[in-house]
Amino acid sequence: MVKMNQTETTNKVIPKKGTWMTYRPDVKVLDCTIRDGGLINKFKFSDDFVKAVYKACIDAGVDYMELGYKASKKIASKDEFGIWKFCDEEDIRRVIGDNDSPLKLSVMADAERTDYREDIPPKSESIIDMIRVATYVHQIPTAVDMIKDAHDKGYETTINIMAVSQLRERDLDEALEILSKTEVDVIYIVDSFGSLYSEDIQYLTAKYLRYAQESGKKLGIHAHNNQQLAYANTIEAIILGTSYVDATIAGLGRGAGNCPMELILGFLKNPKYHLRPILECIEKHIPALRSELSWGFDIPYMITGQFNQHPRTAISFIAENRSDYTNFYDSMLNCD
Amino acid sequence: MVKMNQTETTNKVIPKKGTWMTYRPDVKVLDCTIRDGGLINKFKFSDDFVKAVYKACIDAGVDYMELGYKASKKIASKDEFGIWKFCDEEDIRRVIGDNDSPLKLSVMADAERTDYREDIPPKSESIIDMIRVATYVHQIPTAVDMIKDAHDKGYETTINIMAVSQLRERDLDEALEILSKTEVDVIYIVDSFGSLYSEDIQYLTAKYLRYAQESGKKLGIHAHNNQQLAYANTIEAIILGTSYVDATIAGLGRGAGNCPMELILGFLKNPKYHLRPILECIEKHIPALRSELSWGFDIPYMITGQFNQHPRTAISFIAENRSDYTNFYDSMLNCD
Repeated sequence: MVKMNQTETTNKVIPKKGTWMTYRPDVKVLDCTIRDGGLINKFKFSDDFVKAVYKACIDAGVDYMELGYKASKKIASKDEFGIWKFCDEEDIRRVIGDNDSPLKLSVMADAERTDYREDIPPKSESIIDMIRVATYVHQIPTAVDMIKDAHDKGYETTINIMAVSQLRERDLDEALEILSKTEVDVIYIVDSFGSLYSEDIQYLTAKYLRYAQESGKKLGIHAHNNQQLAYANTIEAIILGTSYVDATIAGLGRGAGNCPMELILGFLKNPKYHLRPILECIEKHIPALRSELSWGFDIPYMITGQFNQHPRTAISFIAENRSDYTNFYDSMLNCD
Repeated sequence: MVKMNQTETTNKVIPKKGTWMTYRPDVKVLDCTIRDGGLINKFKFSDDFVKAVYKACIDAGVDYMELGYKASKKIASKDEFGIWKFCDEEDIRRVIGDNDSPLKLSVMADAERTDYREDIPPKSESIIDMIRVATYVHQIPTAVDMIKDAHDKGYETTINIMAVSQLRERDLDEALEILSKTEVDVIYIVDSFGSLYSEDIQYLTAKYLRYAQESGKKLGIHAHNNQQLAYANTIEAIILGTSYVDATIAGLGRGAGNCPMELILGFLKNPKYHLRPILECIEKHIPALRSELSWGFDIPYMITGQFNQHPRTAISFIAENRSDYTNFYDSMLNCD
């Protein structure tokens, strides 16, 4: 659903970084089960579940685990949200200890919704390894300052440009131009609405890679499953040279959910990854979560994905236990 | 999961037949909801449901609807199975009338499990338009005779080579060589186990196209959703030049199910296709079916897909309401 710039066509062939059998040491898997999943339960996970995900990630050889957000306490209240909305150091350490493991920890910081100067301590005082800055394109100046702040404090950093499927080409180009001059380590393609097709992934990966390679940065992919393409698009991105791969256990995440960890670990041929610990976590913990939370592919999410729209209308529709899909479809046709 | 022949690498670039915006008049959508869905309920659909699928296909602009099989009554009993296992003329006409519509009708005939000479009447006496011959590679001689029989009787024909992900390269080459000399109209890539990745689709499409184009035939794709790739692989195949596309309403089908019709109609930009009638059919009929039948992506199907195995062990596991996925995974590791 991304507009094509006539000066760079999709027919340009991107050299592949390998086949499905290739061992790619640059690939890093980031689990964001708690962070993206927290969007559907206000981050109120039991300590047991967070511990189980943490253990599964370590045993499975996952590279990063994202624990939640560093949300501003001026905007969000600790009475309303669980601890993973804020990721205070003492809360993290109480649940998972001092992380004496190869697994790195990340948190997400939303542009304009994080008091990053105050709430993010120097890396020397923190258990966190990486700050992921999430930004809409109009917030880029703030995001750039957040990257500088986190980098100067000693963290690895990523920039996640949200809702890329609705961006104007020249805005995206300008954003990439600016971001490639920052100290950020990884630039993410974020398919917030689950509306990108493989051709879009090819086109965007080629574009992002041009900026990233010139400035020595890596690419990342964060996909949503509205059209059952989260995993397929993630594979496509990996083959074309993306290194950082977001996934969640059982696809847990807002709306249609994310690229399932169990699929991506089944695909990656790097012997450091192991599927079994993820299956064990699913077996022990997902049935209970499914009885209280709703996520995953469903017709309304498919429709918002096909229309390249935010899933919020679909989320409301499903929360009301409605299944009059034709009315929902008609409302999308009439939406402008 | 397909073995690569060193003489034809996957790096060869297949010229694309267009982008996602291209109008492709050669594309034909085939609904196999009743045929593939029948595998999970012994073809015992209510007349109402079959009528609803038939109407939805017509209203949605679908090109073909597959009603079921022409199973041998010496092997399968009419006491045990519903009418769509046999697709007798009088049964079809009783339910859907004389098909005064642009929708063409097909049935599937399994090699060695169909009394095709006796049970398939001349086209002039039949409401059916197309016979689809399903064959394993060792049954090719029978399949060739079935194609000739159906072609001589006046039908359109397809050949569906099953379980391509487990075929030896030289057997597949020989099969394609033989089939390209028959009168068959369409040659199908069939991912019976849902184990093919996009690279496999690229490789196989290039191979099949070489044989098909030389002999003036079209390509088809029939995908299963074990790894959530049925829709993605179907799109990939279309972009690379496949014309005939199998899909089912709500993905209904054995095990992990098929490429969902609602996804593929949302993708195709040909104005003759309409999504709304499919959504209407889902809204009215799928909730009741879901309460009695089980299909769609699930962990055990994912595992058999990843291991390139027939889903039968996963089907049994799920039928027993088990969710000890790690045991299932361990049993796959120990299976040889």
